Formats: sequence, structure tokens, C-alpha cells
Amino acid sequence: MKKIGVLTSGGDAPGMNAAIRAVVRQGISLGMEVYGIRRGFEGLLDGDLEEMKFHSVGDVLQRGGTILRTARSKRFLEDEWIDHGARMLNTFGIEGIVVIGGEGSYRGGYELSQKGITVMGVPGTIDNDLGYTDFSIGFDTAVNTILGLISNIRDTSSSHERTTIIEVMGRHCGDLALYAGLSGGADVIMIPEIELDINEVCRKVLKGQRSGKAHSIIIKAEGVSMDTAELARLLEEMTAREARAVVPGYIQRGGSPTEYDRRLASMTGAKAVQLLYDDTPSRAIGVQEGQIISVDLGEAIKMTREFKKDIYDLTEVLA
Amino acid sequence: MKKIGVLTSGGDAPGMNAAIRAVVRQGISLGMEVYGIRRGFEGLLDGDLEEMKFHSVGDVLQRGGTILRTARSKRFLEDEWIDHGARMLNTFGIEGIVVIGGEGSYRGGYELSQKGITVMGVPGTIDNDLGYTDFSIGFDTAVNTILGLISNIRDTSSSHERTTIIEVMGRHCGDLALYAGLSGGADVIMIPEIELDINEVCRKVLKGQRSGKAHSIIIKAEGVSMDTAELARLLEEMTAREARAVVPGYIQRGGSPTEYDRRLASMTGAKAVQLLYDDTPSRAIGVQEGQIISVDLGEAIKMTREFKKDIYDLTEVLA
Amino acid sequence: MKKIGVLTSGGDAPGMNAAIRAVVRQGISLGMEVYGIRRGFEGLLDGDLEEMKFHSVGDVLQRGGTILRTARSKRFLEDEWIDHGARMLNTFGIEGIVVIGGEGSYRGGYELSQKGITVMGVPGTIDNDLGYTDFSIGFDTAVNTILGLISNIRDTSSSHERTTIIEVMGRHCGDLALYAGLSGGADVIMIPEIELDINEVCRKVLKGQRSGKAHSIIIKAEGVSMDTAELARLLEEMTAREARAVVPGYIQRGGSPTEYDRRLASMTGAKAVQLLYDDTPSRAIGVQEGQIISVDLGEAIKMTREFKKDIYDLTEVLA
Amino acid sequence: MKKIGVLTSGGDAPGMNAAIRAVVRQGISLGMEVYGIRRGFEGLLDGDLEEMKFHSVGDVLQRGGTILRTARSKRFLEDEWIDHGARMLNTFGIEGIVVIGGEGSYRGGYELSQKGITVMGVPGTIDNDLGYTDFSIGFDTAVNTILGLISNIRDTSSSHERTTIIEVMGRHCGDLALYAGLSGGADVIMIPEIELDINEVCRKVLKGQRSGKAHSIIIKAEGVSMDTAELARLLEEMTAREARAVVPGYIQRGGSPTEYDRRLASMTGAKAVQLLYDDTPSRAIGVQEGQIISVDLGEAIKMTREFKKDIYDLTEVLA
Repeated sequence: MKKIGVLTSGGDAPGMNAAIRAVVRQGISLGMEVYGIRRGFEGLLDGDLEEMKFHSVGDVLQRGGTILRTARSKRFLEDEWIDHGARMLNTFGIEGIVVIGGEGSYRGGYELSQKGITVMGVPGTIDNDLGYTDFSIGFDTAVNTILGLISNIRDTSSSHERTTIIEVMGRHCGDLALYAGLSGGADVIMIPEIELDINEVCRKVLKGQRSGKAHSIIIKAEGVSMDTAELARLLEEMTAREARAVVPGYIQRGGSPTEYDRRLASMTGAKAVQLLYDDTPSRAIGVQEGQIISVDLGEAIKMTREFKKDIYDLTEVLA
Repeated sequence: MKKIGVLTSGGDAPGMNAAIRAVVRQGISLGMEVYGIRRGFEGLLDGDLEEMKFHSVGDVLQRGGTILRTARSKRFLEDEWIDHGARMLNTFGIEGIVVIGGEGSYRGGYELSQKGITVMGVPGTIDNDLGYTDFSIGFDTAVNTILGLISNIRDTSSSHERTTIIEVMGRHCGDLALYAGLSGGADVIMIPEIELDINEVCRKVLKGQRSGKAHSIIIKAEGVSMDTAELARLLEEMTAREARAVVPGYIQRGGSPTEYDRRLASMTGAKAVQLLYDDTPSRAIGVQEGQIISVDLGEAIKMTREFKKDIYDLTEVLA
Repeated sequence: MKKIGVLTSGGDAPGMNAAIRAVVRQGISLGMEVYGIRRGFEGLLDGDLEEMKFHSVGDVLQRGGTILRTARSKRFLEDEWIDHGARMLNTFGIEGIVVIGGEGSYRGGYELSQKGITVMGVPGTIDNDLGYTDFSIGFDTAVNTILGLISNIRDTSSSHERTTIIEVMGRHCGDLALYAGLSGGADVIMIPEIELDINEVCRKVLKGQRSGKAHSIIIKAEGVSMDTAELARLLEEMTAREARAVVPGYIQRGGSPTEYDRRLASMTGAKAVQLLYDDTPSRAIGVQEGQIISVDLGEAIKMTREFKKDIYDLTEVLA
Repeated sequence: MKKIGVLTSGGDAPGMNAAIRAVVRQGISLGMEVYGIRRGFEGLLDGDLEEMKFHSVGDVLQRGGTILRTARSKRFLEDEWIDHGARMLNTFGIEGIVVIGGEGSYRGGYELSQKGITVMGVPGTIDNDLGYTDFSIGFDTAVNTILGLISNIRDTSSSHERTTIIEVMGRHCGDLALYAGLSGGADVIMIPEIELDINEVCRKVLKGQRSGKAHSIIIKAEGVSMDTAELARLLEEMTAREARAVVPGYIQRGGSPTEYDRRLASMTGAKAVQLLYDDTPSRAIGVQEGQIISVDLGEAIKMTREFKKDIYDLTEVLA
């Protein structure tokens, strides 16, 4: 393969730029031409792509977001548009592309692979919800960002002897809440994988209170259905302490990537290009047991995430 | 004066601990006994106070929040409870106290000063809404925290070519939004002092968009009455770009204080104690034109904040 | 086992407090008494230890350094003192201890285990030089701290079009330099595992310069023997650019631990206690292929670290 | 005036980019053409300049360093080269320039002003050593950076119960050490303005030690002549504690500018352009008593800095 493309799609994640850099520079070092496709599949459909050189990715390693921009493409859900995307790549003589993104992007990539394009998936999503890989680019940064927010919240929460509920991202996968909860010392962790009863939450807060804790931190994934206002109301009633909620939202998406995310991005991005160079059929790159691995792209999108019960159990002991 | 007290009251602010440290250590160096009163006026009413030593304030300079805890006291709005507070201080032989807080705390302090207690006000509020002082402890930290949040938001906002509205604290005073807007390069600044029409906001965003900006940042003080959802809806309609809102809330209150806030806290805290030592009647300490000053406490609570029109005008030129 | 001890020894590392917290709380949850031993083996010899409660480790998860303090003990290199240490533990009825530290601490722990004390090693060292574990507590934080320093250096280095040599910690193991070099985009990485000739370094810098880079960053582990002043002199001569050196030193040791280090500390600390509870003979806890594992303590101290050649090779492609 | 230039010169400082942005955008808003001159006076002599547009300074507000690059020019110390510089500006029809820098840059600017060019000085130097202005762009960022470094050092210093000497920048002016010392809680502050005897330093450390401090931090400006190794040796001998030194060097120069530095840069940069627009003769812009002011350029370079004795005295009380 001599000409390849790279795009970022769906929600942005810190480290995507490090992955783009790895794709471009690994590609060039293997003698390939690398095209940057802007705005994900939307830009592909519009023919918005351009060759990238070694220096196109200078000074981007440390930047959050994505220099190629990103989008969610509604058109790309339709078969005729996917055909159009494949034809666009043919027009440019591009045989394979690297798709950096999460679940939806992988599905788009898989559809495109059915049209004769080789597609390599590189996992970029702060939610960490891809089933076939232990970690995704952006997760480590986001969870460290959340720890920083918890640290700020803790100052004011303990000064006022308050309970604070922090709602973090994660619709289907509670990893952000789980890891930030373990490492941030949260009193209660509320995730979609283990739905707590509102009274259980209340009992956990009371237990901490009785054991002398001057304030409580509850971390809740957005995918948890319980109503936050209702929870706060009940907590104020049962614990005789103020309860407040904070929703950091998009703050969790940005920031300079951590070392781990830059490394994971560099290694998975380079691996994706190596596989394209070797004319390997479409695959999803990831990390399992500390090693960079790849699995068949079609298989990857079917795999569901295993819940880290050991981590959850540990939080119950340590909090 | 040989025995003094110190308390923090109202919303906590980064640097309050640096102020407590200055009060304690300056007091001890002048041969006075210094009592820490917990939970603001609430703790005073309950007699929750204790002598502090040089080491009671070791390792607190860099910590957000307040080691003395804080509260808003409803009881202290009633005259008989204020009497009770004064009697409590008499019981301990405390003739003067330092009150670290914002508007409400100053009013409580003033009432107490009418009962024969000397009260020195030290300005601690991230809102920067005290009229007699150019800056309050916590403001510089909060505005730098907001700059960090804007930086995160910018990554994701530009990746998606989106408009993001960030709602920051500030009910009556727009300084947090104004300073963060100037220094964060916001496209639109919405503050209580200059209420913009919804169409004006829209025109400013469109102007930036026409001049080639790939995304827009709007910073809005919580005291601005315009409905955010309505604004976002209109922006999406008129600019053909997604619009999102972020409300960082209590995240703005925490964090390790900046150098400026630690210095302001150290200097105003020390000054308050010096004034007590000199048996000066109740005053409010602050900073004007770069100098530590003090004004009569009763006068201080009547002064209203002057709007920084020059800064606002500069943002119009530079954004 | 009903009574256990915990100490930190050797150079401090961010996350040690998270490990102490896990040991104490896991121990208490299993019904054991946990003693904190101050100043490592020095404190053990002096009988400087005290029972720790659930709340002794409140609010420490996020703090760098070690609340138990640490030291390098010369006495503990002598057999009679090791005997004394074992007797001291017997006096308190402590049958097993958790030693949090690096190579030297593990050797001390092993000697103690030969005197009838069960010793569990928890890896705490920013150098990441323990052979049996992929990562040690503190390494992730230190490498992220170094990335922050590189970011600062890059600002001034590029403004002046300069070459800057950053000397980081790592006497025998170049991991700090290697990982920070990969993820910080260093032009040259100098580590003990792959000693470069001074002319090779020069050629790499010239190559970057020819390809248009306005400045160069060289990251060098302290274990590399080449003289930095000599290198700077040669670089200035051959590249017609200023060359400067920066040695961050102890700055690399501090800081609030990252999520990874807190998690690794929590999991290894808890595991160590579980093994003591189960009366397992002395072992070293660590992480291999993403899993918490343990190996015989005597074996652990004999294992040598494998060099990550794949990462080094990748830096050559991406820089 | 219709055509102006802007350059950065000497050591870089965080916030210089914010100043460049203000100059460019204020200039354009007043209908002027603004030329960016690269590499300070060196670039001027080489004719390395180019017109800047509104978007040339997009996304630079938050970046450390200087996008125009900087240099120290030896040629510009000679009269014939200064003539050459003036002629170069005449060739481009540029009548006035803004020089962003410190002492040496101001002297170069003044010489140039004697050749018929209007020169406005904008203070950019982390050392804060310009006599006519209370603060310079970059100082607030650098002092906050140093506070961060002290925080890291404190973790390891207290864990080992050690004395650590931190040597910060400041050849003639000790402000970085003084402000960081006050706000970082240093036990001893060593600055060129108040040279301490080696025994005095030792006595201060012993005093802290006797009062129960587990470790000591000494902050020393580079302009202080005392030998650090000698000091460390004496301290180890007299205090029975380890003493270590850390020299952060260029780390102090970088980093994203704080809010204050961005604001000061925006206001002084805009003011400089306004003065050029009004055809005011050469002046130096600065801040006095919280207000943006300007003084005659020739006068500015003669003024010497007043020492902040009140701050120094306060550190003696609070440490």
C-alpha cells in the first residue's frame, strides 16, 4: 500500500493528535503518502483531504483535541453515502485509512471496509467503552482531569462539610467514574454496571459520616438513571448536611494528554500503519495485558466490555 | 489587646488558609493569644473555638478551602444571637476578631462591632464583589482556574467547530467573567454590569465566524439573566454551528491559591492583626492602587464596586 | 496474622501515601492491627512505630511524599542490626511487614525475612528499576512531571532556537528518559541501556536541524556517563546553535500522584496485606501484563530489568 | 503613524505572545499596518520582518515563549549597526516600533530612538528588574511556576527531613526569590538586596528546626554570591540534617502565562500602540499603583528598582 488516509471521528479525545502524528510519521518512514481527512467521515464525503508531511504534525504531540477536526456524520449512516466515501478514496488512490475514534466511528469504519477499503481502527475515546481493548486514547487524561476537579471540589466540600455529587461522562461504561472514584477516594461510586438503590447511596454516606468524615464525595456516571436532584434532596433530609451537584461536562474532554495517552497513541497509530503497509485486512488496534494487539475489525465491534469487578470491590474496602 | 479571634465565613475562597496563618503568626509575634473560631459565626454562637499555636498553621499556606471551616449563619442575622456572640467572646476574654469573608460576613462583622467587639474585615471571596478593595483573596486563583477550564474547552470546541457558553460565578459582579474573558480570549463576555441583547451576542459570534474563527467561546456570569438554553438555541439557528453550555460550578472555588492570593492574604491578615494590636476601631482591610489600605468597617459595607470599563472596552478590540 | 507493620524506605515516590492507606485500610477490614513504622528501617531499629487507624490515612491519597517519612539506613546493612530489627518487631508482636520502596529497600526487606519476619515488597520508586514488575509506584507521576518540565523548556528553547539538554533521574534504568523522550517528542534520548557516541548525538541534532526544526531537545538519564558540558560545547561548535543544560533534580520526586500511581499503589498495597493475612511467605508484589502479580521476594531481587527496545525504536521513527 | 513594528528581545517571558497579540490587534483596529520583526534586533538588522494580520495572532494568548522568536544581539551594541537598523525601518516605511523585553532590550530601543525611530518599551522579563514599573510581563507566571516547584520539593524534603536550597533566577533583583519565599513559606530567603552572612542562614535554619519544623526550604536568588556547596556543607555540619540543592534554571522561563501576565501584556501592548498612534515620543509603558502608566524611555532606563522591604520583613514574621 502506498497511499493511506487518517481521520478522527466522533467525540474528540486528548492524544488524538499524538496518534495522527504517529500515523503520518510512521507512514512517511515506510515510504507511503499519508492524507489527512478533515472532520471525520463528513470531510471524507466532501473530499476535504490533503497530503500531510513530516512537519504537518510538528508541535502537536502535547495538544488536546484534534488538528484534523472531528464530527459525527449522519450521512455516513446511509449505504449510498458510504459508497460515495469509498469512491472518494478511490479517486485519490487511497487504499487504506486509519480511523481514530470510538464505537460509532468504528461502525462507520467497518461499513467502509465492506466497500473494499482497508480500515484500521485506533481507539480514541475518553469513555473507554470499546470492548476489545483495555484502554483507549484519552481515558487516562480524562480520569486525571477528573481527579484534579475532585481535588478542587474537596477543598470547598470539606470547608462547608457538604456532600457533593460529581457527574462524569460515561453513558454505557462507568470506567471514568470507577477509576476516578477509586483514586479520588470517593465515598460512593455510581456506575451503569452496578446500579445502586437510592437508599444504598444514602446508607453509604451515613456510614462515612458516622465514621467521622467531615464531608462526602459521590461520583456518578452520566449513564446512571437515578435523578440527581432527587438524590440530593434525600441526602439533605437523611444526613442533615447540604448536598450539591457539579457537572463538569466538556471540561473532561480537553487538556494536554498524559504520558500514557501519548504513548498509547504513538504505539497504536504506528501499529495501524505497519498493518496497512503489510496489506493486512481491516483490524482494530488496542492494548491487552499491557501489549499492543489487534483484532479483526468486524469482531472488535461486537465485543462487549468486561466490568472491572476487582476495582469496584477494592473501592468498597478503601473508601 | 491581648486575645483575639479569627474566623472564616460564607463561601470559601483559596487563600483563606494563608490569611489564617498570617493572623495567627503575626498575633503570636506581637505577644497575643489567637483563637480559631470554627464554622464562622455558627461556631462562635456554639463556643466552638480553640487557641492556635505557631504550628497549628504549618503546611496550610498552599491549601485551598479553610481549615477553620465555614458556614452561612442564619441565626447571626438576628439581634439576640449577635448579642450572644459578643457575650461568648467576652466569656473567653477576646476583645477583637478578624473576619475573613465577603459581603454577608462583613455585614455580620459590622453588627458584632456594634456590640463592643472590634472587628477587622479581611476580604475573602472569589466573586471580587467588595466595593472598597480592588481585589479579594481567592479571585486571582479562581480566574486562573477558569482560564484552565477555558483551555480544556477550547480543545474540544475547536475540534468540533462549536460555540461553547461557559457560565462562571458572579451574581452581582462580573469580574470573574470579565478578567477570564479578556485573558482567555473569549469572543463574547456577558456580565451583569453590561447586559447584552440576545441579538447582540449572536452578531458578535457571527462577526468572529465571518472573520474566520473556527469556533467561539462565550463567557457568561451567573448573574446575567438571559436564558442560556434560549441563547444556545438561537445561536444554533443563526450560525449553523452547534452550541453547548458548561457550568463548572464549585470547581471554581477550590485549588491551591496562586502567589498573588497567598501574598494578599498574608499582607491583609498581618495588617488586620497589627490594627487590633494598636487598638484601632473596626476596619476593613484591602488593596487599593497596589497598596494595603484599610477603611472604616461601616463605610466599607456601603461602598459599591466600580465597573472596570477600560478592561471591557479592551476585550472588544482584542477578541 | 493479626498484627502487621508498614514502612517506606529509600527515595520517596508519589503514591507511597496511597499505598500506606491501602495497607492500613485493607488490614483493618481484615481485622488486623496495622502499625506505621517511621523513617524506614531506621525507625524500626529505634522502635519508632505506632498503631494506625482508619482515619490516620484520611486525606493522604492525593499527597506526594510519605507521611511515614523515609530514610536510607546504614545500620540496616549490618547483620546484628537486622537481628535487632526482627527482635523489635517481635517485641510488638508484629509478624509481618509491608516494605514500600525500591532496590535497596527490598534487599533490606529480604535480609529481615531471613530472620523470621514475613516481608511483602511493594514497589515504590520513580526510577522504575525493579526487574520483576513492569511499573513501580511513582514512575507514572514522575514521567508526567518531566513532560510538564519539557513543555516549559520547549517554550524558551524554541523562542531562542536553542538546543536544550535535560538530565533526568535514572542511574541504571533509563525508563524515565525513554518514556518522557517518546511522549515529549525529544530529538535525542540518551539512556544507560544504549550508550550513544557523542558524534551520534551531534548527527541526530543536525538531522533534525536540516529537516527544519527550530530547536532541539535532548533527554539524558543521569546514569549516562557522557559529560554534559563537553556535549554542549561540541553541539554549539557543530550546529551553530546555543546549547544549554537543565537538571531538574528533586523536582522529579514530588507532586500529587497520577491516577495510575494511586491505583497501582491501592492495588499492590491491598494485595500485600491479603498475602500477609493468608500467611503467605515473603513475596514482592508488582504488575505484569496489566495484572497484579507477586513473586518470591528472594527471586525478585535477583531479576534484572528487560530493556524496552520497541519503545526506543519507535522514538527513532517518530522524533 | 500608519506603519509600526513589534519585536521581542532578550530572555523570553510568558505573556510576550499576549503582548504581541495586543499590539497587532490594537494596531489594526486603529487602521495601522503592523510588522512583526523576528529574532529581536538581530532580525531587524537582517530585514527579517513581515506584516501581521488579525489571525497571525490567533491561538497565541495562552502560549509561553514568543512566536516572533528572540535573541540577544551583539551587533546592536555598535552605533553603525543601530544606524543600519533605523535605515531598515525607513526602507519599510515603519516610523515606530514596540520593543518587548527587559533592561538590555530597552537600552537597544533607546539607542534606536536616538536615530529618529519612535520606540515604545513594553516590559517583558521574569526577573522583574525594570525600575520604572512595579511588575513586568512574565514575573507573575514565573513566581507561580516556582511555587509549583517548591510544592514538589516540599514533598520530598519533608519525607527525608532534609534542608533544600532552591536557586531561582534573578541576577540583580531578588523579587522572584522574595515573592516565592513569602508565598511558598520558605524558611530563609537569600536575595542580592539583603546579603545574609552564612552563619545567619544557619541560625535561621536551626531556629526553625528547634521550633519543630521537620524540614527547611531555603530560596536563593542566583545573584547572591555565597557558594551553595559551602552553605550546604556547613548546614549539614551544624544541623545534623542532609542539605541538598536544586537549580530549576530554564524551567522558570516557560509555561502558559497566568491571568495577570496576559492582562498586563494586553493592556501595556495596547497602550504602546495607542501612544504610537498619537505620535507620542518614545516612552516605556508599565504599571504603577495598579494603573497602566508610561514614562519617558530615556528616564525609564535610568531608574533603579526600589526594594520591597515590607515584604521581606513580613517573611521574617510568618516563616
